Amino acid sequence: MRKTFGFAALLAVGLTTTDVHANDFARYRALFQPLPAQAPAPASNPQTPEKVELGKMLYFEPRLSKSGVISCASCHNPAMGYTDRLPVAVGHHGLKGPRNSPTVLNSGFLGSQFWDGRAADLEEQALGPIQADVEMAMPLKEAVATLKGIEAYRAHFAAVWPSQKDPVSAENIGKAIAAFERTLNTPDSPFDRFLEGDENALTAQQKRGMAAFVDNGCIACHRGPALTDSNFHRFELEGSEDLGRFEVTGKDDDRYKFRTQTLRNVAITYPYFNDGSVRQLADAVRIMGKKMLGKDLDDETVADIEAFLVSLTGKQPEITIPQLP
Amino acid sequence: MRKTFGFAALLAVGLTTTDVHANDFARYRALFQPLPAQAPAPASNPQTPEKVELGKMLYFEPRLSKSGVISCASCHNPAMGYTDRLPVAVGHHGLKGPRNSPTVLNSGFLGSQFWDGRAADLEEQALGPIQADVEMAMPLKEAVATLKGIEAYRAHFAAVWPSQKDPVSAENIGKAIAAFERTLNTPDSPFDRFLEGDENALTAQQKRGMAAFVDNGCIACHRGPALTDSNFHRFELEGSEDLGRFEVTGKDDDRYKFRTQTLRNVAITYPYFNDGSVRQLADAVRIMGKKMLGKDLDDETVADIEAFLVSLTGKQPEITIPQLP
Repeated sequence: MRKTFGFAALLAVGLTTTDVHANDFARYRALFQPLPAQAPAPASNPQTPEKVELGKMLYFEPRLSKSGVISCASCHNPAMGYTDRLPVAVGHHGLKGPRNSPTVLNSGFLGSQFWDGRAADLEEQALGPIQADVEMAMPLKEAVATLKGIEAYRAHFAAVWPSQKDPVSAENIGKAIAAFERTLNTPDSPFDRFLEGDENALTAQQKRGMAAFVDNGCIACHRGPALTDSNFHRFELEGSEDLGRFEVTGKDDDRYKFRTQTLRNVAITYPYFNDGSVRQLADAVRIMGKKMLGKDLDDETVADIEAFLVSLTGKQPEITIPQLP
Repeated sequence: MRKTFGFAALLAVGLTTTDVHANDFARYRALFQPLPAQAPAPASNPQTPEKVELGKMLYFEPRLSKSGVISCASCHNPAMGYTDRLPVAVGHHGLKGPRNSPTVLNSGFLGSQFWDGRAADLEEQALGPIQADVEMAMPLKEAVATLKGIEAYRAHFAAVWPSQKDPVSAENIGKAIAAFERTLNTPDSPFDRFLEGDENALTAQQKRGMAAFVDNGCIACHRGPALTDSNFHRFELEGSEDLGRFEVTGKDDDRYKFRTQTLRNVAITYPYFNDGSVRQLADAVRIMGKKMLGKDLDDETVADIEAFLVSLTGKQPEITIPQLP
């Protein structure tokens, strides 16, 4: 069944497999969407400048960790594509986590959070690493108490939620961080500029790579503005015993399933896959071709697709480090 | 002898202890100097924009640590006055260091580096924490090899030192970081604006605090643009067995001696002293009065001096996080 996956995808998106002229990319282009500058916010957590600013402070706040030195920004490092360039996360007391740290960039466009989708949204996700033993190792109660003990935070939370009697809460910590994260998007990549009409924004090789990305079926799962369907697919990697989505649902059908990763900024968010075992983007392309599409992509096609993926590196958010109280 | 320390200081700076009118601060003002925007650079390591930019990257570079998650910015955190707001540093695998992390802000104005002055300059200092077991735990050879393995760094070092055959070296890592650190200064504090003629930049209490700071002799050691003489003074804190400067020189006379800390930004670089055991600035003022000047400062004087010290918080450098290769 996997072998026909790419073909099914082409049908799904309305393309046929008939010949495509190398210089005619209009039909390909029509299959993609540029990335918006702002991720959609849920009605229960509307964006406000004050909330985003508070969320930014909390994102950089190491006092949310037991050791006092780890913040969201430690593993989701703005200097490194909002990840850590390590195979797996290194957290509290140098403990290693089980999975590669995903980028926060454009994560507001995902349908669920974490590799296994165990958090429905960024609000829920943000509270996970704070508590996890191998990450920040801080009980939420203590995190809340710490912030309550700092006058400037009490004032900030009260300003963001003026009608609440006790606004410094775990729920609001999650909401503020999520609001900040929804601003961490990378529009204006070469590919976005191409989609918006600038023919010269992509090189000839990148255009060939875009066509190969479609023709080989990658687009079946990597689609939409963030190039992910936010769905779960079986991906069993040699050397990894990670059961993925199964650990959330307990369903046999979910063994080894992981949410499709965004390909936005993929060139700067190495290493790849749930265990971070693959360092080179070309190798990742080759492995995906084999495992997900049943194809042995030739070197030229891999190089073309890699060049296309590099065009997905967008303008990084310019983050001025906040001054914490 | 300590009891006359303050008096000696007044003589040294040309003041007498005769009455001072509360509204006449000109003589006090003449004893201080505003902070320059740029720290002096040694002839052997001139500032260039490219070197500063490279130094900034290295300052934020966690791959200079064995774990891959600790950078200079971890303990000297730009979000927290370039320190960590912890009693003592927490580094590799959560290990605690023996001393409080000093701020990097205005450190280019100090005559030596580290609490015990064991590094002559920032170039030498920068290489210390990279190697220290309880900090970044990275042998310099490995740090150099890591950077050499990253093409963008090879190009950056070559651009900064075009005449060198092998510019990616430990020495140049130190030089680049030092050059960046020399830009991390905080001029334009309320006190600086007062010194430059703005009478309203300080409150009445802060002006009284400035006078008390002089009259009680604090200025004997806390003088010059960074409010430190860069000299070593005996400071034996209850509960601390840190021998300070003695560990560097082995001289009996240097037991428990530490370099005078800068008071610039002291209000945001808590907790205080070599073991970080004091959290409140007012307590630190009281302890210094007792230990260094032999004085039991009354509550009003302590509050005035504290208010003055708050006026030493300058404009923090606006740091946009670099994009690491």
